[in-house]
Amino acid sequence: MDNTKILLVKAELRSENGEKADKLRETIKEKNSFMVNITSSPGSGKTTLLKRTIGILKDRHSIAVLEADIDSDVDAKAISETGAKAVQLHTGGMCHMDAAMARDGVAALEGDYDLIFIENIGNLICTAGFDIGANLNVTILSVPEGDDKPLKYPKMYGWADAVVINKVDALPVFDFSKERIIENVHNLNPEVPIFFLSAKTGEGVEDFADWLNEKIEG
Amino acid sequence: MDNTKILLVKAELRSENGEKADKLRETIKEKNSFMVNITSSPGSGKTTLLKRTIGILKDRHSIAVLEADIDSDVDAKAISETGAKAVQLHTGGMCHMDAAMARDGVAALEGDYDLIFIENIGNLICTAGFDIGANLNVTILSVPEGDDKPLKYPKMYGWADAVVINKVDALPVFDFSKERIIENVHNLNPEVPIFFLSAKTGEGVEDFADWLNEKIEG
Repeated sequence: MDNTKILLVKAELRSENGEKADKLRETIKEKNSFMVNITSSPGSGKTTLLKRTIGILKDRHSIAVLEADIDSDVDAKAISETGAKAVQLHTGGMCHMDAAMARDGVAALEGDYDLIFIENIGNLICTAGFDIGANLNVTILSVPEGDDKPLKYPKMYGWADAVVINKVDALPVFDFSKERIIENVHNLNPEVPIFFLSAKTGEGVEDFADWLNEKIEG
Repeated sequence: MDNTKILLVKAELRSENGEKADKLRETIKEKNSFMVNITSSPGSGKTTLLKRTIGILKDRHSIAVLEADIDSDVDAKAISETGAKAVQLHTGGMCHMDAAMARDGVAALEGDYDLIFIENIGNLICTAGFDIGANLNVTILSVPEGDDKPLKYPKMYGWADAVVINKVDALPVFDFSKERIIENVHNLNPEVPIFFLSAKTGEGVEDFADWLNEKIEG
């Protein structure tokens, strides 16, 4: 079964983005829906975390995923295997989504969902702080990338509503300190929750899904 | 000893970039120098590979590094520990270098070097195909990012003069296939050399340094 639909989305005027983001949030609220923007570097495990999280939450919520990418549909195909509705958005080379792209993606779902994930373009710069109309912005850092990343990409980690540290199963083979990452993240964003997990093994994903569930139902 | 100097660089008109890149290559040739642009995702190991490679080549060549970053100077500090000249470039939020930034960085070195490395911004999109006046464009993919990345960022892998697969010491804990990555890269870029190495342990770095040395002396 392949639920994948591919949609070419276009950026609109940056000066009007904030207004469109607010309007999209209103639309989503009217539909009793909830939208989560997932950002990270390429290869941090966005798709794998989504698959795991969908597995935990799918009995409680109807779920759809908008998969933004430059050019491929590998992620949407992977997501559609979970049974969740997946639409692949092609951004035509743009390094981030904007609110207009998110709006067009939501319309392309052709139905209402309790929970809509947006897997943003793999990028720690362009996507940081860019409002696409989501209710929550979650950023993932994987252990192999190193615990110094918040020092180098402060906007991303200062802005996130939650930080996920993925690939903790690989901690033994990398020089990555849990204490240092907590310190580096909380220096930028003192109250932000930090989830240590492995999307591959499933370790810790339940806590993240529970937190998300509270936000959705709250 | 801290050789670090920080320079705020600004992008110039995109339409004139190609011309400025060609001019910078001429200047570099006149100085008998050679410039290598290193690109990758955040956390793929650009800085660690540079430190290893400098260790191997520093007795044969005078070496300088331009470290591009949004906001920090952690990489330039790490490089200056090798004894190589390091200048930190801050791009003011831009997600890639341009030829004008590279030109200003080269001028800030205040001296001639046989080999100039540019560690570009950690990003697989904005930097891809963007000519900054280098003689070679080398891109790094680390094992934890996954062997599907060329499918998602074809411009980057189609354009590179060499592809480095870093963190091979972590192969046992990741589902990463050497055969698949070779196939995915060569489908886009049939002749490109691919180096499998670990910048952390040093395994395979000698081959990459030898190849680079041939290009410099050739």
